[in-house]
Amino acid sequence: MKANVTITLKKGVLDPQGKAIEGALHSLGFDGVENVRQGKLIELELPETDREAARAQVEAMCEKLLANTVIESYRIDLV
Amino acid sequence: MKANVTITLKKGVLDPQGKAIEGALHSLGFDGVENVRQGKLIELELPETDREAARAQVEAMCEKLLANTVIESYRIDLV
Repeated sequence: MKANVTITLKKGVLDPQGKAIEGALHSLGFDGVENVRQGKLIELELPETDREAARAQVEAMCEKLLANTVIESYRIDLV
Repeated sequence: MKANVTITLKKGVLDPQGKAIEGALHSLGFDGVENVRQGKLIELELPETDREAARAQVEAMCEKLLANTVIESYRIDLV
Protein backbone atom coordinates (compact mmCIF):
# COMPACT_ATOMS: atom_id res chain seq x y z
CA MET A 1 0.00 0.00 0.00
CA LYS A 2 1.17 3.50 -0.83
CA ALA A 3 0.96 6.35 1.70
CA ASN A 4 1.52 10.08 1.27
CA VAL A 5 2.39 11.95 4.46
CA THR A 6 2.07 15.73 4.38
CA ILE A 7 3.91 17.46 7.22
CA THR A 8 3.37 21.16 7.84
CA LEU A 9 4.32 23.57 10.58
CA LYS A 10 1.56 24.24 13.08
CA LYS A 11 -0.19 27.63 12.89
CA GLY A 12 1.75 30.30 14.73
CA VAL A 13 5.11 28.56 14.37
CA LEU A 14 7.59 30.85 12.61
CA ASP A 15 8.63 29.56 9.18
CA PRO A 16 12.01 31.09 8.25
CA GLN A 17 12.19 28.99 5.10
CA GLY A 18 8.80 30.22 4.00
CA LYS A 19 9.86 33.81 4.73
CA ALA A 20 13.02 33.34 2.66
CA ILE A 21 11.01 32.00 -0.28
CA GLU A 22 8.54 34.88 0.07
CA GLY A 23 11.39 37.40 -0.04
CA ALA A 24 12.92 35.73 -3.07
CA LEU A 25 9.56 35.72 -4.87
CA HIS A 26 9.16 39.42 -4.15
CA SER A 27 12.62 40.14 -5.52
CA LEU A 28 11.65 38.23 -8.69
CA GLY A 29 8.70 40.57 -9.12
CA PHE A 30 5.90 38.46 -7.59
CA ASP A 31 4.95 41.32 -5.28
CA GLY A 32 1.56 40.33 -3.88
CA VAL A 33 2.57 36.88 -2.63
CA GLU A 34 1.95 36.35 1.10
CA ASN A 35 1.93 33.70 3.83
CA VAL A 36 4.41 31.41 2.11
CA ARG A 37 4.82 28.25 4.19
CA GLN A 38 7.02 25.26 3.31
CA GLY A 39 6.23 21.72 4.40
CA LYS A 40 7.33 18.18 3.55
CA LEU A 41 5.69 15.47 1.51
CA ILE A 42 6.90 11.94 2.20
CA GLU A 43 5.79 9.14 -0.10
CA LEU A 44 6.33 5.55 0.99
CA GLU A 45 5.15 2.00 0.34
CA LEU A 46 4.42 -0.58 2.99
CA PRO A 47 3.48 -4.25 2.63
CA GLU A 48 0.39 -3.95 4.87
CA THR A 49 -2.82 -4.45 2.87
CA ASP A 50 -5.36 -3.66 5.58
CA ARG A 51 -6.07 0.08 5.44
CA GLU A 52 -6.58 0.60 9.17
CA ALA A 53 -3.46 -1.34 10.09
CA ALA A 54 -1.51 0.58 7.46
CA ARG A 55 -2.79 3.91 8.77
CA ALA A 56 -1.81 2.92 12.34
CA GLN A 57 1.69 1.97 11.16
CA VAL A 58 2.20 5.23 9.27
CA GLU A 59 0.89 7.16 12.28
CA ALA A 60 3.51 5.43 14.42
CA MET A 61 6.16 6.36 11.86
CA CYS A 62 5.05 9.99 12.05
CA GLU A 63 5.03 10.06 15.83
CA LYS A 64 8.44 8.37 16.10
CA LEU A 65 10.36 9.88 13.21
CA LEU A 66 8.74 11.70 10.32
CA ALA A 67 7.18 14.63 12.16
CA ASN A 68 8.32 16.77 15.08
CA THR A 69 4.90 16.80 16.67
CA VAL A 70 5.82 19.71 18.96
CA ILE A 71 5.85 22.12 16.02
CA GLU A 72 4.53 20.09 13.11
CA SER A 73 1.21 18.47 12.24
CA TYR A 74 0.84 15.64 9.72
CA ARG A 75 -1.82 14.29 7.40
CA ILE A 76 -1.80 10.74 6.07
CA ASP A 77 -3.34 9.86 2.69
CA LEU A 78 -3.47 6.18 1.79
CA VAL A 79 -3.42 5.68 -1.98
CA MET B 1 -6.25 33.05 -3.78
CA LYS B 2 -4.43 30.19 -2.03
CA ALA B 3 -2.14 27.82 -3.93
CA ASN B 4 -0.50 24.58 -2.84
CA VAL B 5 2.58 23.59 -4.83
CA THR B 6 3.78 20.01 -4.48
CA ILE B 7 7.34 19.49 -5.68
CA THR B 8 8.72 15.97 -6.05
CA LEU B 9 11.83 14.47 -7.56
CA LYS B 10 11.33 13.07 -11.05
CA LYS B 11 11.23 9.27 -11.42
CA GLY B 12 14.72 7.84 -11.62
CA VAL B 13 16.38 10.68 -9.74
CA LEU B 14 18.22 9.34 -6.69
CA ASP B 15 16.69 10.54 -3.40
CA PRO B 16 19.35 10.35 -0.66
CA GLN B 17 17.00 11.96 1.84
CA GLY B 18 14.35 9.38 1.11
CA LYS B 19 16.94 6.61 1.48
CA ALA B 20 18.04 8.03 4.84
CA ILE B 21 14.45 8.12 6.09
CA GLU B 22 13.90 4.58 4.82
CA GLY B 23 16.96 3.36 6.73
CA ALA B 24 15.87 5.13 9.89
CA LEU B 25 12.38 3.63 9.63
CA HIS B 26 13.90 0.17 9.25
CA SER B 27 16.05 0.70 12.31
CA LEU B 28 12.92 1.67 14.24
CA GLY B 29 11.38 -1.67 13.31
CA PHE B 30 9.26 -0.64 10.32
CA ASP B 31 10.86 -3.32 8.19
CA GLY B 32 8.66 -3.62 5.11
CA VAL B 33 8.74 0.08 4.19
CA GLU B 34 10.04 0.76 0.66
CA ASN B 35 10.44 3.49 -1.95
CA VAL B 36 10.50 6.36 0.53
CA ARG B 37 10.68 9.64 -1.38
CA GLN B 38 10.69 13.14 0.16
CA GLY B 39 9.27 16.19 -1.60
CA LYS B 40 8.26 19.73 -0.72
CA LEU B 41 4.88 21.32 -0.19
CA ILE B 42 4.76 25.11 -0.55
CA GLU B 43 1.62 26.94 0.46
CA LEU B 44 1.20 30.56 -0.60
CA GLU B 45 -1.42 33.26 -1.08
CA LEU B 46 -1.58 35.65 -4.01
CA PRO B 47 -3.91 38.58 -4.62
CA GLU B 48 -4.92 37.37 -8.10
CA THR B 49 -8.60 36.32 -8.17
CA ASP B 50 -8.78 34.94 -11.70
CA ARG B 51 -7.94 31.23 -11.53
CA GLU B 52 -6.15 31.00 -14.87
CA ALA B 53 -4.07 34.09 -14.22
CA ALA B 54 -3.24 32.79 -10.75
CA ARG B 55 -2.19 29.40 -12.15
CA ALA B 56 0.03 31.13 -14.73
CA GLN B 57 1.68 33.22 -12.01
CA VAL B 58 2.34 30.23 -9.78
CA GLU B 59 3.70 28.30 -12.75
CA ALA B 60 6.12 31.16 -13.38
CA MET B 61 7.14 31.04 -9.70
CA CYS B 62 7.83 27.32 -10.02
CA GLU B 63 9.83 27.70 -13.20
CA LYS B 64 11.89 30.59 -11.83
CA LEU B 65 12.41 29.63 -8.20
CA LEU B 66 10.36 27.00 -6.42
CA ALA B 67 11.30 23.93 -8.46
CA ASN B 68 14.54 22.77 -10.03
CA THR B 69 12.84 21.59 -13.18
CA VAL B 70 15.89 19.57 -14.27
CA ILE B 71 15.29 17.03 -11.50
CA GLU B 72 11.96 18.03 -10.00
CA SER B 73 8.36 18.11 -11.21
CA TYR B 74 5.64 20.22 -9.64
CA ARG B 75 1.87 20.15 -9.25
CA ILE B 76 -0.22 23.25 -8.55
CA ASP B 77 -3.49 23.04 -6.62
CA LEU B 78 -5.51 26.25 -6.37
CA VAL B 79 -7.64 26.28 -3.23
